[in-house]
Amino acid sequence: AYSVDWDAAAAEKDGFDWFMLKEIAEQPKAVADTLLGRLSDTGALVLDELRLTEQELRDIDKVFVVACGTAYHAGLIAKYAIEHWTRIPVEVELASEFRYRDPVLDRSTLVVVVSQSGETMDTLMALRHAREQKAKVLAICNANGSTIPRESDAVLYTHAGPEVAVASTKGFLTQVVACYLVGAFLAQVRGVKYADEVAAIVDELRALPEKVTEVLATMEPVRELARSLATEDTLLFLGRHVGYPVALEGALKLKELAYIHAEGFAAGELKHGSIALIDQGTPVVVIVPSPLSRESVHGKVVSNIQEVRARGARTIVIAEEGDEDVVPFADHLIRVPRTPTLLAPVVTTVPLQVLACEIAATRGLDVDQPRNLAKSVTVE
Amino acid sequence: AYSVDWDAAAAEKDGFDWFMLKEIAEQPKAVADTLLGRLSDTGALVLDELRLTEQELRDIDKVFVVACGTAYHAGLIAKYAIEHWTRIPVEVELASEFRYRDPVLDRSTLVVVVSQSGETMDTLMALRHAREQKAKVLAICNANGSTIPRESDAVLYTHAGPEVAVASTKGFLTQVVACYLVGAFLAQVRGVKYADEVAAIVDELRALPEKVTEVLATMEPVRELARSLATEDTLLFLGRHVGYPVALEGALKLKELAYIHAEGFAAGELKHGSIALIDQGTPVVVIVPSPLSRESVHGKVVSNIQEVRARGARTIVIAEEGDEDVVPFADHLIRVPRTPTLLAPVVTTVPLQVLACEIAATRGLDVDQPRNLAKSVTVE
Repeated sequence: AYSVDWDAAAAEKDGFDWFMLKEIAEQPKAVADTLLGRLSDTGALVLDELRLTEQELRDIDKVFVVACGTAYHAGLIAKYAIEHWTRIPVEVELASEFRYRDPVLDRSTLVVVVSQSGETMDTLMALRHAREQKAKVLAICNANGSTIPRESDAVLYTHAGPEVAVASTKGFLTQVVACYLVGAFLAQVRGVKYADEVAAIVDELRALPEKVTEVLATMEPVRELARSLATEDTLLFLGRHVGYPVALEGALKLKELAYIHAEGFAAGELKHGSIALIDQGTPVVVIVPSPLSRESVHGKVVSNIQEVRARGARTIVIAEEGDEDVVPFADHLIRVPRTPTLLAPVVTTVPLQVLACEIAATRGLDVDQPRNLAKSVTVE
Repeated sequence: AYSVDWDAAAAEKDGFDWFMLKEIAEQPKAVADTLLGRLSDTGALVLDELRLTEQELRDIDKVFVVACGTAYHAGLIAKYAIEHWTRIPVEVELASEFRYRDPVLDRSTLVVVVSQSGETMDTLMALRHAREQKAKVLAICNANGSTIPRESDAVLYTHAGPEVAVASTKGFLTQVVACYLVGAFLAQVRGVKYADEVAAIVDELRALPEKVTEVLATMEPVRELARSLATEDTLLFLGRHVGYPVALEGALKLKELAYIHAEGFAAGELKHGSIALIDQGTPVVVIVPSPLSRESVHGKVVSNIQEVRARGARTIVIAEEGDEDVVPFADHLIRVPRTPTLLAPVVTTVPLQVLACEIAATRGLDVDQPRNLAKSVTVE
């Protein structure tokens, strides 16, 4: 009989304390691998593997993205990109709710199901329901040959490599990138973007791995901050637009790993009730959009930072390099490289992963195997 | 100069300790008043006041419901009813996010905006954006002659009477009822329901005030339970289908009033991450659908109760009279009268209002004027 000894486990982790840290560090490569072979030299998208004809993709007049947990947050980001690039309406649904809700589906509906393992039971059940209603199903999965891709009309694999830590990191980032590929490809096939416009998106996607590397190189102050937050009971995360799903994902990571009751909010929604939670010293993480994204949104988020600070919050601000407007209101400032509006989640999520991992480790918890959780949820 | 003395304030509260308690007690009348004059003797819906022609209502092929805070939860419930009764796809959006998201709108889109005060700035801005895109806007408001109804194409007033407590109770319940009226009226006008089917819905709506009265008569054990929960740091709320928005609303009330970090979840989603929060004794409130609603959904919720209990949760179960399946797994059981599937939120919300109010009072907080909050949020 064999037993895995510590040295072997450490070797698998490439010297990192946790699989999660290793997987966070692998993200530039995972993102690059997910793009590999899908961007042509001429700036077009090549998704021959999709198994849906261009005519079928042109016939689509409605998209649902259906997923659970972290993958659901990738779906929320997909909605912004697909709607903005294609003007096809997109609804995002929790898989466990989707099939019981009588969604309005037909042959011209595309249902995108997102699951790292390809075995998530809720998502599989949703996919079967969608196919019974004659919708086309496209799976975004990481595990080759798993059940969900096998039962779908089309599949786009993320190439994140094996993910061992229960809390998804590179799995999530590559799902987000795959959603961008789907959105841009739909725009290309349907002709709603010119070739040079698609080429511009392709260039932006190509630049992502290097940006993630830049973020990873500056995480030491975030780890230090995390250690100072390890005794908190509550953390709030705020974002607008694509920063809102990032806020939800940052909060979920903390719940999963550190058992801290964190919650993500649309920044403009807080004043409609939940701002009552904020007391002297309550840590509030704010994901700030680029000042170049849409001036009014950036200004509103800066106002939101001031509002929570006026009520006593300790503000932890994630903002683009060069954004000086946030400086006076940030108790802690985390910088990320300038990134196009829709793609920003790929860089802003990374500090939140590091934050959650380090807080959990400081609390003495098992980062890779949180209580009550399984890596792949194969029950409904 | 006048000053309001205590006796006068007590008189306004009709002998209740708080305006919120008075307004909770007024809910049967508020619901009845909102239905008054809108249900004909022959079982049809009469919404002449709407200012949209029947042809305009027939031309609608997409509905958005846009709101903030508690009113957003009413919108989430509206989605189930409108889609189920009319098969028109419905999207529900936070007003603060809606206008920055480039929603796909046109002349055949109906945007339903929901605001108790009719002055909510985020909602007003969303309504203006929708009208600029040529969508039809229908307002559901309580305050007569306020800005939102004035700028809308159509208005359906809730007749809740003045709501003084910052946390909405009768305002919310009447918004939910108004959403049912809109859904059933759309079904009637478009001919997708036969007259006898509409009459059946009308009968169900007519029965609601009596059911709310029944719930209110059985709240003493809920108040007692609330006092035992007053020192908790975290409460979780679970629901599926229309019980999910009820879970969100129950959690929001606790955040607003008691400053307890409560959170609502779709019951099936918990295992995808947030279940890690559950520790020995964590209180978890579960809103159980009727066993008659859809057997599979009821069974899944019963399983969810068992799952959280196996991880140490103290379960507080809200279930229909006669539902014996939940009894073995309920540490505390709150009964509500049998109510049709889609209308259940009108009864299941009430115990959660009482719970939040009593927990806040036990903590010695000002129930009517929570910290950081305004009754009507007239800034963005």
